[in-house]
Amino acid sequence: MTDDQRYIQPEVLERFLGNLFERGGMSTTDAAYCADCMVKTNLWGVDSHGVLRMPIYLKRLLSGVINAKPDIKPLKDSTGPIALIDGDSGMGYIVGRAGMKLAIEKAKTHGIGMVLARNSNHYGAAALYAREAVEAGMIGISTTNVIPNIGMKGSKRPSTGNNPIAMAAPLCEDFPFVLDISLSAVAGGKLLLAAKKGEKIPTDWAVTSDGKETDDPVAGFAGFLLPVGMHKGFGLSLFIDLITGVLSGGPFLHDLKSMYKHAEDPSLTSHLFLAIDPEIFLTREEYEQRVQQWAAMVHGSEMVDPAVKQVIPGEIEFNREQERKASGIPMPEDLIKELAAYGTELDVQLPGVLVQ
Amino acid sequence: MTDDQRYIQPEVLERFLGNLFERGGMSTTDAAYCADCMVKTNLWGVDSHGVLRMPIYLKRLLSGVINAKPDIKPLKDSTGPIALIDGDSGMGYIVGRAGMKLAIEKAKTHGIGMVLARNSNHYGAAALYAREAVEAGMIGISTTNVIPNIGMKGSKRPSTGNNPIAMAAPLCEDFPFVLDISLSAVAGGKLLLAAKKGEKIPTDWAVTSDGKETDDPVAGFAGFLLPVGMHKGFGLSLFIDLITGVLSGGPFLHDLKSMYKHAEDPSLTSHLFLAIDPEIFLTREEYEQRVQQWAAMVHGSEMVDPAVKQVIPGEIEFNREQERKASGIPMPEDLIKELAAYGTELDVQLPGVLVQ
Repeated sequence: MTDDQRYIQPEVLERFLGNLFERGGMSTTDAAYCADCMVKTNLWGVDSHGVLRMPIYLKRLLSGVINAKPDIKPLKDSTGPIALIDGDSGMGYIVGRAGMKLAIEKAKTHGIGMVLARNSNHYGAAALYAREAVEAGMIGISTTNVIPNIGMKGSKRPSTGNNPIAMAAPLCEDFPFVLDISLSAVAGGKLLLAAKKGEKIPTDWAVTSDGKETDDPVAGFAGFLLPVGMHKGFGLSLFIDLITGVLSGGPFLHDLKSMYKHAEDPSLTSHLFLAIDPEIFLTREEYEQRVQQWAAMVHGSEMVDPAVKQVIPGEIEFNREQERKASGIPMPEDLIKELAAYGTELDVQLPGVLVQ
Repeated sequence: MTDDQRYIQPEVLERFLGNLFERGGMSTTDAAYCADCMVKTNLWGVDSHGVLRMPIYLKRLLSGVINAKPDIKPLKDSTGPIALIDGDSGMGYIVGRAGMKLAIEKAKTHGIGMVLARNSNHYGAAALYAREAVEAGMIGISTTNVIPNIGMKGSKRPSTGNNPIAMAAPLCEDFPFVLDISLSAVAGGKLLLAAKKGEKIPTDWAVTSDGKETDDPVAGFAGFLLPVGMHKGFGLSLFIDLITGVLSGGPFLHDLKSMYKHAEDPSLTSHLFLAIDPEIFLTREEYEQRVQQWAAMVHGSEMVDPAVKQVIPGEIEFNREQERKASGIPMPEDLIKELAAYGTELDVQLPGVLVQ
């Protein structure tokens, strides 16, 4: 049954999630914002970070671990381009919205805005916030620390997080440039897929639970993932933990809490939001003209198969979004059941699920 | 003969390089700065970017392609945290020094400083500039675009650069945190090493000159390198090219010039320099205490072999520096001959080369 899935219309899913968030104690506006974030994420095809996370969010909201009505405020008065905010244990989406909004305001005044947020929770896809900058005509970066879940070869246990980072820029095409990556060699899902197919995995993907080299996807999934490019991804991850966790005054590395393993504890994650206004360097017309030339040059890359076009980060997500707006969002049967049960408990209906 | 090498004392090499730069038309101060940059790079063990590059730098200085006395100036008046400077075709080291100096000044006033430089040349190891920020007690980032030399699987030709990026932060240990990476899967030198050993290479390291998959290091070296983590490194590279080349108003991607293939043309590279003052978020004492706790946690990572310690980026370079200050800097015999010939031509001596 676990492979079965059904398709649900985005607007139906969004209303359902919004209602659940509201039942979890959030304001109508905040609930709608969170639901919008999650549905967008699924529309882009990033199913690891969309509705799949709803059960744990809801569980934590209902238990009060996540503060449904956080008082997100600056920890220091700042009229300059930098700020530090306290997330007050709120939903990561709400802290993220506040962080990038402030970074954008600062970039409007100063050309650049950098905001750190501490005392937050899982904030979904980092691309959400980098894209907010693009909506304001700016270049955006967002990243976050997470609990240690990767380590170098030779580590017995994970020593740092796969700290996701997103970068986005207006392209003046149908879609913006959006890169959203984590710092593990591959996603855990790739190991599950290899296991299902009975394939071996390269030994630079994962190690066993005792840190031993393995080409067995099952042993690797039971162990932990290695960093992308080994010392490259490891170093990037450490730097991100330092500039989010250390610099924000929040917890770092092993002092963070997994929302799954420690469902009763706040995650204590710290995020970074950076916005840069291109108009500090170029006129809007110059930027638009130059970035279009740039995109055309990337698209014009000479390929082995001339029928294949080099895509730009963000393009696949844009195409997926068009498809899924038509087809609906695929949801595993198990997840539908789990959410429907929450719906029954909280008196919220999930109508209109389309059978595949 | 090509594997033969001799050791030279750092201070001797630095004086020799400084004299050569001066004969190339640079001021005594600028010449000494460039020589210092190159010797430091060799001391850290980054031999791909130290004295190895001297012949091409000198050739370009002597021909006038590199402007020995550049007038590096802001392209726009800026009292805020952001600036754009014109490198006036100067040595990359000199443009880099100016760029990070300005970023640090701005960070002192605003908490953050971001400077873009265009119209520059090869600036050596990106770590040089990130480390300048650390010298000022700050966190530093530097990156640059370079000519397309990597591409995605499926590309027939390289489509973007391996754009190096460095990040540094004070650790309040013997050494600072310094990560300096390029965005290819591995360095070309690793292919040469595999070829010498008669080993095959993983198919995600490089492709043939026609973009075809290969596990042959010779064919891979004759072809081009693949990005680290494939779409991850590729996307990072494109983003760096966009925020340096597009945003600075300089050339980007295929409009850049290789200093080797186009020795008679300026490289036209653009760099980014970012400095962040930790004291905008924490007191100096808080930062020092927290970052030391952080470093201790990384060093305390549980390892498969308890005798092995997890190193922090920058630590290997620090240790190498201590070793090489004692042993001298290894230089290939061929390079010594090439530089000695320049020395004879320009009436500069290279004394004190130690035979291995």
